[in-house]
Amino acid sequence: MDGLDEREERAWRAFFEMQVRFWRHMGQQLQRDTGLSEPDFAVLTALAQAPEGRLRPYELGGFIDYEKSRLHHHLTRMGERGLIAREQCAEPARGAMIVLTEAGRAAIDSAIPQRIAHVRRWLIDPLTEDQLDTLTDISHQVLEGLDND
Amino acid sequence: MDGLDEREERAWRAFFEMQVRFWRHMGQQLQRDTGLSEPDFAVLTALAQAPEGRLRPYELGGFIDYEKSRLHHHLTRMGERGLIAREQCAEPARGAMIVLTEAGRAAIDSAIPQRIAHVRRWLIDPLTEDQLDTLTDISHQVLEGLDND
Repeated sequence: MDGLDEREERAWRAFFEMQVRFWRHMGQQLQRDTGLSEPDFAVLTALAQAPEGRLRPYELGGFIDYEKSRLHHHLTRMGERGLIAREQCAEPARGAMIVLTEAGRAAIDSAIPQRIAHVRRWLIDPLTEDQLDTLTDISHQVLEGLDND
Repeated sequence: MDGLDEREERAWRAFFEMQVRFWRHMGQQLQRDTGLSEPDFAVLTALAQAPEGRLRPYELGGFIDYEKSRLHHHLTRMGERGLIAREQCAEPARGAMIVLTEAGRAAIDSAIPQRIAHVRRWLIDPLTEDQLDTLTDISHQVLEGLDND
């Protein structure tokens, strides 16, 4: 890629390839070990951390980069699998809430230790403690740049 | 997240948040500056680098993590926008090729310098040269772990 010097291009290409392959691998392994896709996992995690396990659909949009109609279809399929339910509010004008079901809670509770094991295996274990700390610093500096934008 | 010590959890959370926000920002800025989505950019880049600007649909699947039907719909929409075309092979049994059009070539040629500027602004510039080199090393070690799996 023109416009970057050799050191910059090396870092960009390595970072790009790493994160594409890391997430592809993480997603495949999550599916295999838990039956959950990456979007399922994001939705269930968000609900499990929300008060009473409930969120409005638009609030879930902050955790999963889907357009509104795709998110709606995804939530419908998760409902059919019994992982979540829709619940009408007392005030109809405020629309439906998405609620974690017991089955959804059980699914996320058993998936989280698997995900942690995957993070350990494919991100933590390959790195030294110094590299882990540098990864933290690098991430914070990139985040700070995005915040200042 | 239980199961990771404090240093590990800090690194994982920072890395996770950074790459989610980095790609969201990169995608929004690409769309704003070039009219191309991230999947458009991936497809056009792959075609621009292919011999004669042609690839089979399944070959494009290696560059974009879409299921087959979603990739098909995306390619149809890109065709309607004139960025790519479908071309029947001499041997029909081998199916259609996806071909970069002149408009598609112009779109990717003008998008690449924008993407480079975005990479510089949100990844390269916030980091020191040493951090860039460590990011390269970290990425290679993670990739090596995935290769050995």
